[in-house]
This record gives sequence, C-alpha cells and structure tokens, in this order.
Amino acid sequence: MGIFKDNGVVYKAAADVDLGPDSDEFYLRANVKAPRMAGLLVKVFAWLLESILGGMLLYFLKKNNLIHKLVSFAELQEEPLFVPLHPHQGDEEKETINIDPNAPPQEKVEEAAKCLRSFVDEQEPRIPQPSFHRWTVLDYASAYKSGETTPTKVAERFIACAKESSDMSFFINYCIDDILSQAAESTLRHQRGEAISVLDGVPVAVKDEIDCMPYPTTGGTKWMQKVRECRNDAYCVKCLRSCGAIIVGKTNMHELGAGISGINPHYGAARNPYNRSKITGGSSSGSAAVVAAGLCPLALGVDGGGSVRLPAALCGVVGFKPTFSRVPHQGVLPINYTIGMVGILTATVEDALIAYAAIAGADESSTTAVPRVGLPLLKSANYMSDHIKIARYGKWFDDSTDDIKACCSNAVAKLSDKYGWKTVEVTIPEIEVMRLSHYTTIGSECSNSIKSYLQNVNKEEIGWDVRVGLAVYDSFDSNEYLNAQKMRRRQLQFHEKIFSVADVIVSPTVGVTAYTIKDDALKTGELDYINGAALVRYQIAGNFLGLPAVTVPVGYDRSGLPIGLQFIGKPWSESLLIYIASAMQALCISGCKKPEVFYDMLTKE
Amino acid sequence: MGIFKDNGVVYKAAADVDLGPDSDEFYLRANVKAPRMAGLLVKVFAWLLESILGGMLLYFLKKNNLIHKLVSFAELQEEPLFVPLHPHQGDEEKETINIDPNAPPQEKVEEAAKCLRSFVDEQEPRIPQPSFHRWTVLDYASAYKSGETTPTKVAERFIACAKESSDMSFFINYCIDDILSQAAESTLRHQRGEAISVLDGVPVAVKDEIDCMPYPTTGGTKWMQKVRECRNDAYCVKCLRSCGAIIVGKTNMHELGAGISGINPHYGAARNPYNRSKITGGSSSGSAAVVAAGLCPLALGVDGGGSVRLPAALCGVVGFKPTFSRVPHQGVLPINYTIGMVGILTATVEDALIAYAAIAGADESSTTAVPRVGLPLLKSANYMSDHIKIARYGKWFDDSTDDIKACCSNAVAKLSDKYGWKTVEVTIPEIEVMRLSHYTTIGSECSNSIKSYLQNVNKEEIGWDVRVGLAVYDSFDSNEYLNAQKMRRRQLQFHEKIFSVADVIVSPTVGVTAYTIKDDALKTGELDYINGAALVRYQIAGNFLGLPAVTVPVGYDRSGLPIGLQFIGKPWSESLLIYIASAMQALCISGCKKPEVFYDMLTKE
Repeated sequence: MGIFKDNGVVYKAAADVDLGPDSDEFYLRANVKAPRMAGLLVKVFAWLLESILGGMLLYFLKKNNLIHKLVSFAELQEEPLFVPLHPHQGDEEKETINIDPNAPPQEKVEEAAKCLRSFVDEQEPRIPQPSFHRWTVLDYASAYKSGETTPTKVAERFIACAKESSDMSFFINYCIDDILSQAAESTLRHQRGEAISVLDGVPVAVKDEIDCMPYPTTGGTKWMQKVRECRNDAYCVKCLRSCGAIIVGKTNMHELGAGISGINPHYGAARNPYNRSKITGGSSSGSAAVVAAGLCPLALGVDGGGSVRLPAALCGVVGFKPTFSRVPHQGVLPINYTIGMVGILTATVEDALIAYAAIAGADESSTTAVPRVGLPLLKSANYMSDHIKIARYGKWFDDSTDDIKACCSNAVAKLSDKYGWKTVEVTIPEIEVMRLSHYTTIGSECSNSIKSYLQNVNKEEIGWDVRVGLAVYDSFDSNEYLNAQKMRRRQLQFHEKIFSVADVIVSPTVGVTAYTIKDDALKTGELDYINGAALVRYQIAGNFLGLPAVTVPVGYDRSGLPIGLQFIGKPWSESLLIYIASAMQALCISGCKKPEVFYDMLTKE
Repeated sequence: MGIFKDNGVVYKAAADVDLGPDSDEFYLRANVKAPRMAGLLVKVFAWLLESILGGMLLYFLKKNNLIHKLVSFAELQEEPLFVPLHPHQGDEEKETINIDPNAPPQEKVEEAAKCLRSFVDEQEPRIPQPSFHRWTVLDYASAYKSGETTPTKVAERFIACAKESSDMSFFINYCIDDILSQAAESTLRHQRGEAISVLDGVPVAVKDEIDCMPYPTTGGTKWMQKVRECRNDAYCVKCLRSCGAIIVGKTNMHELGAGISGINPHYGAARNPYNRSKITGGSSSGSAAVVAAGLCPLALGVDGGGSVRLPAALCGVVGFKPTFSRVPHQGVLPINYTIGMVGILTATVEDALIAYAAIAGADESSTTAVPRVGLPLLKSANYMSDHIKIARYGKWFDDSTDDIKACCSNAVAKLSDKYGWKTVEVTIPEIEVMRLSHYTTIGSECSNSIKSYLQNVNKEEIGWDVRVGLAVYDSFDSNEYLNAQKMRRRQLQFHEKIFSVADVIVSPTVGVTAYTIKDDALKTGELDYINGAALVRYQIAGNFLGLPAVTVPVGYDRSGLPIGLQFIGKPWSESLLIYIASAMQALCISGCKKPEVFYDMLTKE
C-alpha cells in the first residue's frame, strides 16, 4: 500500500506493488464505524446531518471511516481515470462468434439461440436433470411453438400471480391492460407462425430505474416521476420489445439506488422468495425476486455498486453486468455518470446470454467504435477447457461467512476437478480503498445529478435513510473526487496485471446471505453499513473499473438461503465469462432448491 | 442560455441553442468584481483567505463573480465530459501529407522542412522582404551549412546576450558549460557534414514547467525542485534534443502557472522586449520573450489557459497549441490533468511547423491509437484556397481595445481580399461561463495535484498572489467540478456545430495589449482579475475543449505593442491551422517591427 502518515496514506507506485500470492500487502477489512440505525434514530440522524451541525458530523464520519486517511488526504502517483472506458483491440474474443453490434436485436438473439444449442450440447459432463428448475426462455419459446400455452395465457397467469404476491413488494407498477394487449399481439404472431424471436411472448420485468412506456420512472422514489417525465423506452427496453418480449411492469428497487437492502419505505420492502422475512438485496431488488419467484425468466436491472449481482446472489439467480458501455445507457435514470450499467437477471446463464445478445450494441448517438458482440460458441470446442486460469485472492475470498466460504471454495474446487482449470493465487491490494473511492465517486455524481431535481421536491417525500445518504453524498470536495479517480487508475493497473496471469477473478458474490427485514426499518429504511460493506465487498471492481462480471448460484447456507459465486472478467470478455459461468452452473444446477414463494408460469400447478 | 433562477441558471439543451448570427443569446462580458491588489493588500487578502474567515470570504467571492449562478448551482442537461480527447476518424487531414507519429523526430522534421519549401513557394502573393525579421530555423541551418557561423559561435553569443539581458528576467536557469558542450558537439557534426536535421545547433529555450536535464524543474516556484526531482528530459525535450537542438536553459514563468501576468516575485517580472516596462503575459512569459528578443528562434511552453498563445501575442511572436494529447505530456510538471498541453513559441509559423513535427507523437506508455501527424503540404495546391470558411462571433471579437479590434478586423479583411476566404458570422454562446468552468476545473486539478507537495513546503516560500490563487483553487466541491465538466460537453457541442459550417474560428488573441508592470507588484505579485479576464477572453476553448489554436502577430497598437490574431481549429486540424496562419503571416510580416530589446544571433551587429 504505502506509508501511513498523519493525514493520509502515501501510496507507493502501482507498478511497485507485489500482486503475487506472498505479497506483504495487508488485507484491510472494512472498518465501518457506524451502528445499525432504524426508526427514530435514522430520523434524528438525518435531521442532524441536515442541520447546522451537519458539516462537523460529516467530517467525523468521514474521518472515522477512514475516508480521510485512505482517500481524501492520500498521496497518489497515478493520474486520474475518470471514465472506465476500455480501448477495444478487436481481438479480445477471437475464439468466439462475433456479431455485428448494429444488427437488429432479433437477429442477434437468434445468433445467441443458435450458439446456445450447440454450446450446451458441447458441455461435459452432461447436465443432469435438476431436482428443481425454472423455465427458461427456450422453454417458453417451445411451449408457444408447440401450442401448449400462449402468451395470453401466460400473461393472465402472470397477472394473477403478481396480485397474489403483492405482499412481497416485487413491483412498483404494472398495467394489466398493457400486458394483455402486448400478449394478444404476441399470441397472434405465434398463431400465424410469425414469432419474431425466441423472446416473443416471454415476460420481462424492468427495474423502475429504466424508462419503459407506459410507466413513469420513479427510481424507487415518490418524487422523481413528478420532476422528470418518461417519454420513451430506454435503449435496452426497446431492444427486448423489438424481439417480441412482453414487458410486464416496473420492479421495486432501493430508493434512488442509494442503498442495497431493497427496503423501500414507499413501495414496501421487497421480500426474498426463499424466505419472505429476509431481504432480497438491492438496489435491483424486485428484478432479482421476480426471476427467483418464477414470474419471469428475465428481468433488467442497473448495477452501480453491485446492484444487479448482489440481489441476484441473495435470491439464487444469475446476475450479469457487461463491460462498461457495452449496453447503451440511454433511457436509464441519470443518477451517476461513470459507474452504473444496465445488467441482466435470469434463472440461467443461457438466458443471460440471450438477453445480452439482444441489448448489447450501439445507440444512435454513439460516436466511438462499438466492439463486436462475442457469443460463447467456441470455434474450436476444446480451445479453452484446459487453459482457463482463475485468479483467487485467498484473504478476500475468505472474508465471508463460514457457509459462503465453504460453499464457494467447494464450487471452485469442482471446476478444477471437472475441467482441469487452474487456480492462480494472487493478491489484489487496497480493495477497501477501492470501495471508499467508489463511494466517493458515486456519491459525488449522484448528488450532482439529482441536485436540480431536488430543488422542486419536498424533503418529506424522501425516505429517511436516503436523506442520510444524500447528506453524505453532498459532502465531497473536488479534491476527494479527483483522488478517487486516481485510485481508479491505480486499481485498473492492478487488475490489468492480474489479468495478465489469469483469465478471470473468482470470489463469492456477497459476504453474507440475505439478512432479516426488521420491522423498525419498514417505514424509515435502515442504515446498516456493516452488513452493507459485507454485501458490496466483492462488487466494486465491476463498477469502478467497468469490468464485466457474473454471479451464478452455487448452493445454500444452513438456513437455506442462496449463495452466489462471482466471476470478474477482462474488458470485453463477456463470452468467456458466460462460458465459464455456464460450466459452473452445470455443476451446481442439480442442487437447485425451490423457493418458498414460487409460481409456475407454464404448467398450472 | 436558459432561465435565470434564484440559485443558478437553468440552461436549455445545447442542441436547442441558436448559433446563427441572429441568435438571441446575449453576450455576457466578464463580470469581474475584484479590485486590483498588490503589495500589502495582497498579503492581507491571502492571510484572510487562509484564516478561519476564508470559507465565508470565498463563498462571497464565488457568489459575486457569478460562479455560483453560472456554474455551481446551474442546471445542465449534458453529461460531463472529463477529458477533451477527440476520436480520430483517420480522414481529418486527407488533403495533406501525413507522417507516422512513431517515426524518429529527425525524420519527421525533415519531412516538415521538405513541406515547408514547396509550401512557402506555393503561396500567393509572394512574401515581400520584411523590413525587420527574426532568423528562422532554416536561416540557422543554412548559416551552419555554409559555414558563415557555427553552433559554438551562436552559443557564445547567446551566453553573452543572456547575461546582458539579465535584467529582463527571461531565464530562471541556464548552464553555460552545458550549452557550450552541446554546441561543441553540434559544431563537430556540422564540420563532418553529419548534421542530424535542420534543428541541429539551433538554440531552444524550455519553460521551467518542463523537465529538462541538467536543470531542476522549478515551475516558477522556490520549492517545487525540493519536493520533486527532475530525472529525465520530458518527451518534447527528448525529441528536440534528438534532432540536434541546443537546449539553452529554462525560461521564466508565472509561479505554478497560476497567473498570466508573468510577474514572478522569485525570479523577477519577465519584461516585454517591445517595451521593458510592460508585462510579457504568461504563464510562459520567458519563452515568449526570448523568441521575441531574438535569443532563440524556438521555445517550448505549456498552455493551460492560454499560457502559450497569450504571451506570444503580447510579445509579437507565433504561439501554437496543438490538439489535446497530440504532444505526449510526459515530463511536464503535473499541475493539472485535463487542461494543460505543451505548446510552441516561434518567430514564424514555419518554425512552429518544424517544432510541431518534431514533438507530435506517442510516448511509450500510450495505449490508444495515435493519429498520424498532418503536415500542410497540400496534395492539390488549390484545394483549400477558395474554400476556407472562417467563423467570427462579432460581439466577442469586438470585446477588445479599439486598436486590437481595428487591427484584427483589418487582418481578417485582408485574408478575404487576397484569398477569397469567406467569413461566416456565428454566435458562440456562454463564453464567460466556459471561462468560469475552466477556472473551476484547472483550480480543482491544480489544488489536487500539488496538495501532497505542499505538505512539505513552508508557506512563506510561496508568492502572495499564488497563495490567494491556491486558496480559491481549494474551495471547489465535487458538485462544482462535475458541473464544470457538463459545461465542457455543452461547449464542445456548440463548437462542433460551428465547425460544421466553418473550418476555423477567428478572434483576437487577447483583449488588451501588454500592460504596465507596477512596482508594487514586484515583490508580492498582483491580483488583477479584470485585466486577467481580458487576457484569457479568447483562450479557453483551446484548453477546455482541447482544440488546436495558433496566434499570429498582425500589427501593433498606437504605443507600438504587438497585437495577435488567433485561429482555433477542429480537433486534429493542425495542418490546416498552420496553412491558414502562414497565409495570414504572409500578409502582415512586412510590417513587423523590431523590439526595443533585440539580439541578432547570426550576424553580429
């Protein structure tokens, strides 16, 4: 790391830091000094922060939580890196099928579906029929093709189940008429044998941070929709819609994405299908939950600090965040500039591939070269199977509950047993510093981006936990912001070096499984920075450095709550990530458990 | 612009702003509310800003100077643009000779010299022999070749003249032994007929912000060299040295580049060769002055807010700032990240071309594609002569002294008379807002980049005017920084639109000619934000948007002080800019006047 001085750390040059397994870089555990707060306590805290004492209080908060020492007053030799855009060399995915990013979404989806068939067939060992499984996009497509069911029947069943599960707080908004009319059109297309793609008639839910007609975009707030009108589908929604997907509504989320519990005081605390007393995680809480509960095979989320991967892991589904800028951001609520990214929540890795093919691309305003979209149909089937090297940082990997540690270690061991893939022990320095730098960045950017909206908002419409968050977000000076960007360059250098010896980095997806929703948090939200730090522990590189990452469910803790394993890839290596994740899934899917709350959309139970 | 609200301006979308000549966008003159301060007043002001009252004082300073209204509390729809990097399409300079940016500097220089000969020959009307002219690089080369003089003779004469002019405060440092030994080597090469390039033996001065062995890099301070060691030549110096140039020393500059008068309390106020009681302008004060005084045909500067073009204009020489990133920044004092850029000061446009060819390129660490370097040898001689369109924003153009206005208008009229080039009247909105946004950015970045150095510096070693500057620089929060970056995107959109109807933008280079150095400023520096605003009025797009720009001397005011005309080009259009500037120069060079302080390096007077 460097030298601890009175004010801040003097970091040594990134190039001089040892990233080997025996590095003397110490692993700094999150040093969160803030008690859990909910109910009246949060209110008092928010009042104080907004009062004349706020400045002083924030000073001590930042000081005690090491932001001062590690970020604000740090000395760094690296230049700032403001946006995690990665140059594309053109040969990143040379062993894969590459498709034109500007092709119509339905063509890209068909390419992906073609890949999928041969790709699944290739895998060894053959996937045993799992004890429980969720319907996939291809299941829907074949059920529609064979006439077993129709989009309209599915839509009707969806509406009934959505109503039935209303106490789970999955949705912020859905419009029955709109769903039925989309379904009727799709049904007609299927009857005529004119289905647009395998997604035709498939129900898709969209996080309420993404513009999607005919709904307002609330961002989980009570006020955003009053100050910002939704006038068009976002790019990603447009793509899925043009493939024939039925958009079934807007899912619940942590207010403004400014938290990760998924406890929303306005629209209810989204509840975990595996245990309704537990959180789903957030901020894409509802999107993870509806996929876990079987309501849709596919949902869209936005991942700014693990907000897709984290709830996916807590809810036992797949969460996939592509490389920064791979999915055009147009039509996503502008609440930060250099961090957030549309992500995909699905029951299986293969469905993530299909959705990925549909939404990866270029919007009209793109001025830079858009990389071709790689699909994991390996041109030579055995190319990678012997060669994949997986980097693992032991101290970080093990900084999770015993159940998670054991389950994830076991999963990695299986990979190496079955496929002969090698694990490379490495050291990834300053992970906690990266978390604080990311927080400084997303906080500054969120504060800046919503400042003008907030002028016209009554403070009382904002949740109490978010008011606390916004006060902290507003406290950063330009020096702190710039230091955080220097840290971004530094961490990218570390990660580039690790990717020179390994293909992916593996870690648990989260440090704890879903925790209990306490009653005192329901109205005010809660501040639980300790659990919060454990939830985002493994997420940050995906956002701050714009790296692609995927989480796969690999088991359950002793109380039956899902555990996810994460793979983080090099820039533009999505197809390799999907390949690896699919191989991992094949080894774990037979142990998949049915959640407490589950709906079967295709066969009426 | 938008709507003025209580707190800040609500800007309308950039795309909706009318840039035509009849636009109702109003021209906001710099609204500087700060009296000139020098002597004791600056000291008191610095003390106050550094005291417990500083925060409050800064608040009112920023409020009164419209920073709050126009930047801090502004509402903007544009996304931030952090770094003015421009995608290169590859066909920007298709009518020119393009050379490999990775070729050895001496090869690039030879290409440029070749271009030069045919390019000068092509011009109409033929250049009349001027009444006074400075020796050019080619003059040196031919004097060495013919044996009229030798590099050693020139070096000796240089040393004598440098001593003689020591009261002009041109240099911070020069090493007689080092100069003589370089000259001896060059003389030997010439004797053997092995001159490396046309630059072999040519004296070149380097701003003391650029690393150059064997000198420390002071940045115009008394302390920088103690906390940061100079270990290597900067990229640009390395290039010139490898062409055989003799590096004759480090030129004076405004301390830290944090001002533009060139009055340096530690190394003296650089004095204008045209009138020793006047400023040279800054921050590359010495570099402009030595070229004007004939000591070198070429000097390097760094342009962060006009710091090359501005002193060039005040001293009656050519100042050229290429597109951001065209010259690798390696080895330049890291005092900002997204603004500063190496620039070239020469007696003639043709010499700027030679230096440009030498230093444009790619350093080893460059990871992105480096555009080819265009040289203005037009493949079809008459391609551009009828077609060049020059954008002019009348209200802005005319916001200068009467003498400047008349002289610059006259120069533009000559261009259109002689070459038939068309002037397109346009509106460039929010120029004053851009100045404030640039100030917010350069201030934040400077503060961040030198913070760690300052920890080990005794405050009393810093000049008083710079202490005031640093206090302001340190006052920006991340919101202000981010809003400034949004303004950057917005302005780039305006400029792109203007470049869709014109090839270049023309303006005076500065709003006032060189003003008097007052005695009270000599020890403390001075704060003269009103003259300061007039000096940077036309500079900002070159830095904030990373556009290439060049200033050419076009005349004198009634007291004989030089006036410059500026052309601002599209990204990567350096060869066109040089072409246009050379055409302009051809029409004005006959009126060139000899400065009060002038040394002839080739013919002993």
